Amino acid sequence: MALLEHIGEPADLRGLSHAQLGALADEIRGFLVRHVARTGGHLGPNLGVVELTLALHRCFDSPRDALLWDVGHQAYVHKILTGRTAGFARLRQRGGLSGYPSRAESAHDHIEHSHASMALSYADGMAKARQLAGDGGRHIVAVVGDGALTGGPAWEALNSIAAAPDRPVVIVVNDNGRSYAPTVGGLARHLSALRTHARHERPADLGRRALDEAGAPGRRPHRAVHATRQGIKDALAPRTFFADLGLAYLGPVDGHDLPAVEDALERAKGLGCPVVVHCVTRKGLGYRPAEDDDTDHFHGVGAIDPRTGVPLRTSGLTWSAAFGHELSAAAAESPEVVAITAAMPDSVGLTAFAARYPSRFFDVGIAEQHAVASAAGLAMGGLHPVVAVYGTFLNRAVDQVLMDLALHRLGVTLVIDRAGLTGDDGPSHNGLWDLALLQPVPGLRLAAPRDLPTLREELREALGVADAPTALRFPRGAVAPDIPALRRTGGVDVLRESHGGVLVVAVGVMARTALDAAELCAARGVPTTVVDPRWVTPLPAELLRLAGGHRAVVTVEDGLRSGGVGTAVLQQLADAGITAPVRVLGVRDGFPGHGTRAELLAEAGLTPEAVAQAVVSVAGEAWTAGAADPPPTTRGATPPAR
Amino acid sequence: MALLEHIGEPADLRGLSHAQLGALADEIRGFLVRHVARTGGHLGPNLGVVELTLALHRCFDSPRDALLWDVGHQAYVHKILTGRTAGFARLRQRGGLSGYPSRAESAHDHIEHSHASMALSYADGMAKARQLAGDGGRHIVAVVGDGALTGGPAWEALNSIAAAPDRPVVIVVNDNGRSYAPTVGGLARHLSALRTHARHERPADLGRRALDEAGAPGRRPHRAVHATRQGIKDALAPRTFFADLGLAYLGPVDGHDLPAVEDALERAKGLGCPVVVHCVTRKGLGYRPAEDDDTDHFHGVGAIDPRTGVPLRTSGLTWSAAFGHELSAAAAESPEVVAITAAMPDSVGLTAFAARYPSRFFDVGIAEQHAVASAAGLAMGGLHPVVAVYGTFLNRAVDQVLMDLALHRLGVTLVIDRAGLTGDDGPSHNGLWDLALLQPVPGLRLAAPRDLPTLREELREALGVADAPTALRFPRGAVAPDIPALRRTGGVDVLRESHGGVLVVAVGVMARTALDAAELCAARGVPTTVVDPRWVTPLPAELLRLAGGHRAVVTVEDGLRSGGVGTAVLQQLADAGITAPVRVLGVRDGFPGHGTRAELLAEAGLTPEAVAQAVVSVAGEAWTAGAADPPPTTRGATPPAR
Repeated sequence: MALLEHIGEPADLRGLSHAQLGALADEIRGFLVRHVARTGGHLGPNLGVVELTLALHRCFDSPRDALLWDVGHQAYVHKILTGRTAGFARLRQRGGLSGYPSRAESAHDHIEHSHASMALSYADGMAKARQLAGDGGRHIVAVVGDGALTGGPAWEALNSIAAAPDRPVVIVVNDNGRSYAPTVGGLARHLSALRTHARHERPADLGRRALDEAGAPGRRPHRAVHATRQGIKDALAPRTFFADLGLAYLGPVDGHDLPAVEDALERAKGLGCPVVVHCVTRKGLGYRPAEDDDTDHFHGVGAIDPRTGVPLRTSGLTWSAAFGHELSAAAAESPEVVAITAAMPDSVGLTAFAARYPSRFFDVGIAEQHAVASAAGLAMGGLHPVVAVYGTFLNRAVDQVLMDLALHRLGVTLVIDRAGLTGDDGPSHNGLWDLALLQPVPGLRLAAPRDLPTLREELREALGVADAPTALRFPRGAVAPDIPALRRTGGVDVLRESHGGVLVVAVGVMARTALDAAELCAARGVPTTVVDPRWVTPLPAELLRLAGGHRAVVTVEDGLRSGGVGTAVLQQLADAGITAPVRVLGVRDGFPGHGTRAELLAEAGLTPEAVAQAVVSVAGEAWTAGAADPPPTTRGATPPAR
Repeated sequence: MALLEHIGEPADLRGLSHAQLGALADEIRGFLVRHVARTGGHLGPNLGVVELTLALHRCFDSPRDALLWDVGHQAYVHKILTGRTAGFARLRQRGGLSGYPSRAESAHDHIEHSHASMALSYADGMAKARQLAGDGGRHIVAVVGDGALTGGPAWEALNSIAAAPDRPVVIVVNDNGRSYAPTVGGLARHLSALRTHARHERPADLGRRALDEAGAPGRRPHRAVHATRQGIKDALAPRTFFADLGLAYLGPVDGHDLPAVEDALERAKGLGCPVVVHCVTRKGLGYRPAEDDDTDHFHGVGAIDPRTGVPLRTSGLTWSAAFGHELSAAAAESPEVVAITAAMPDSVGLTAFAARYPSRFFDVGIAEQHAVASAAGLAMGGLHPVVAVYGTFLNRAVDQVLMDLALHRLGVTLVIDRAGLTGDDGPSHNGLWDLALLQPVPGLRLAAPRDLPTLREELREALGVADAPTALRFPRGAVAPDIPALRRTGGVDVLRESHGGVLVVAVGVMARTALDAAELCAARGVPTTVVDPRWVTPLPAELLRLAGGHRAVVTVEDGLRSGGVGTAVLQQLADAGITAPVRVLGVRDGFPGHGTRAELLAEAGLTPEAVAQAVVSVAGEAWTAGAADPPPTTRGATPPAR
């Protein structure tokens, strides 16, 4: 820590020699491995941008110049260089350092969320604001991965940025050839061709050096920078997609050759027009276990042994893996089943499916809109596509779910992984919106499995629906033990039964919480019935009949309360003229900070104790309202206090 | 109609000579002008694709080959050639021909909705399905405008299509240099350069011919087709963005030169790989008033005099125009106000603003995601951006509203035009989702003005909010007369007042309907209070107090019932333990067919009579429930029958 402990702010980098900077890069890599091995976090992406981040902070004057990190999971080095080393002890823990940029943490941070392909839009907006203010001295720099360039918003922004040659933006393409998995599509091939072009031109090519000399980066004086602008012909310059749009292009540059990167950035600064600086980097560089890992180069890890990279804990069977297994099984029987991912095959449990059915598996890039809309095309072609996606990223394809799936009444199944509170990745990774956003989709049916048998069953049911979109949602983490039903009535699983009393409607895995709460309620003299409606959109009519037999209703879901399943229950009851007291339990704070799922559930009032309190409270109201008619199964018991 | 009346299906085109086809094109243009002048509809786009559509139906075998029309408003000629001429008498009228492709109308139609930039995704999905089925003989053709290529989903799809050189797709770029307004950005400049390249190469250039010889298209034998593929160098070929991605490229072709277009399409058919056919067309070609119109070349029109193009009816002041006027006024006082459109400056009322404040006006292309996310950047730069967008297109930027605006707590105002039922453009143009999709956005405030004074007032209030996104929604059409409030209490406007009775909560322009309903209720002995909460998300707490003073509640909104304002009212009442009967009125059918707004409102039960019936019905329940305590203001009156 000889050098690192003297770096409190970016200005401290200015006086260092390139030899010192090389040593600092090594220190930073050691720091990252040591800390992330303990807390978990995004390791591979940050190991890949050490030199790039050093160069950015030496060439630009943050926070006056704006450094915008697309996705943000590669901002650890930026955090280290902006005075936040101490925070890494509690990285991604409740109250500790965020895993993404955070404006509350630092004036050096701007974009707080984790959704890819957006930084260029901010850059365009900030450049427009700067131009209006006449503040020409302020540089705006966006760092975007090659994977993120496959996302539609990045294209929309590139097109707009290119529209104004007099509005400078520095676009650093951090090209490591991957999102999580290798980047796919025409653009990836083009970037690869640009790298090859550079290699053919120059035997001591930097792109290859990055491959050959891992672990000793950034200390060669050799530089390779091309500059082309529309209209300026350069026989040596590669023909680039960016130049076609009217953007200047510098590169490719070895992103681990600090002087080369600095040289390119300085040139970019001086151009006075929008410019792409193409940096070739290696995810996981300098940490052997990450370099050797073919899956995702340790993109994100839990706690690991820092020497070996081996996870310290193995979770049980995850929901993702269980889904992937079931989908493979279903695909064996049904040749029409195909699977789609938006650049996250491993994260959503589809690796085994992809290996077993490569021709029936489609990675479309970080492109949720296309994932859903191309599924429409596949369904029109007679297939049953399954789009597996994190809940938070499905928000990007709402229009496609509405127009391309629902309006066309196509049999496409959305599998929503990481639904509900997810925890340590912070507010933008929570899957809090799926229930609210999908309920108003006409004809869509949404199920929330509570355990492995219901996952199996509801997935099969979804695959059987050919004339409407279906969706399944489940949380992050391991599948908990099975929760058998006492009986099924009108599609509703009754998990615990009383006559009269309070009806508790549990969505998906909240069934366990509801059952535990029911035990507490029983001890307090309040009888409850706990049901899992299985398909929560639309709600089974049977739920209404069950509600009619109870004195009050409590709904429990781990998504946003606003617009959630509880509101649908309220509407169903109101339509039927049932005026029983109802409590809608769910997440009230739409953007809870990072923490464990358990911590966030507790803060949201979604623990057995908090649910029990709500049940007892609403029972009190119901007893009061119907005082002349005490609840059937608690005759003689003391009515609960409100 | 000599030729046209003999065209019942595409096969009837096969035997025609090019001279006959030229005459047919003229007939079709005449037919289009005659019918659309009477019914209204999309005129300019269809006049621009007459020859292109003839060529497509001659070269491909629809419906076996799939012709996919992006956006779909340019499919009138396709409808004419597939046996639907008779339907044009009732184009866009309830029960008549849809203004977009419709699978219920014809096996030749596939994509039914009007949202741009999506056809390439369908093509990619259908090509994948065809490959899996081993059905190599089926061609998949997508027709996409240059404007639609500025949309992110088109980019995502291009990237995926380019990923598979062995999966042929014919992408016809219908390049007329416009979306509604001229197409913007780097891609537009690139396409323009391609056209120029062709012009420099060939003095009798087809692109220029299209400009010079309007009205006599399609009868020259001259052909201009280039073919390049990655790896095949052609000194004459222009350097294209498409080729960079690995797509074959043919063009530019004069889209009004039928033999040239046919030649290009036949070549494309034979290539066996994804290929772009770049056709240069002129919106409005062959109809002088459309050709001469600089605004949008008669993109969409109401009924017009077919000889002059002059509108037969002038509507009163529209909501769009009123908003644009108010925004200009606000901008005069507040230099931080800037405006953004996604390629529809005129449609959303911003033309005057753009002329008055050109540096503060941004057209970002058909790119709703970037419109919202670049607004985030502008807001971070100290400005107050106003994003004006149709309700149905805001669905494309849900993630950006959540992550880029709400999570960052930025003062950006969304102005939602065409909210609620819009009518003759059919299911995909209705703005039914905004209330449901925006309610779960943390911190967002949404107002629904009921008339001009409240539009003015609420726009100013929205522009005054600097730390959260705000939204205003209003319908299509003319602003109706003012509806003065009796008084304002806790932010709620009381429009009519009773003590006890039924509280009617009206959203925006439904205030008029609610007041008319209240008159009917009064005649039936049911007293009502009608309120406009003004800001409907979040609901004012005052609403709760008002509800407490009434016996029942009815909510009225012209958006989807599911997830709408009514559900928020239900939740607020449930939270407070108020168990009064509630009726939630809104649109139940998420995809009503095309018709007038009045027709659709009637079908949705949103007429004064239907609302009155609901009020009387819920009053009956309330009277029954509280029989011992008749409602205060109707003592002595007969309780209404249920």
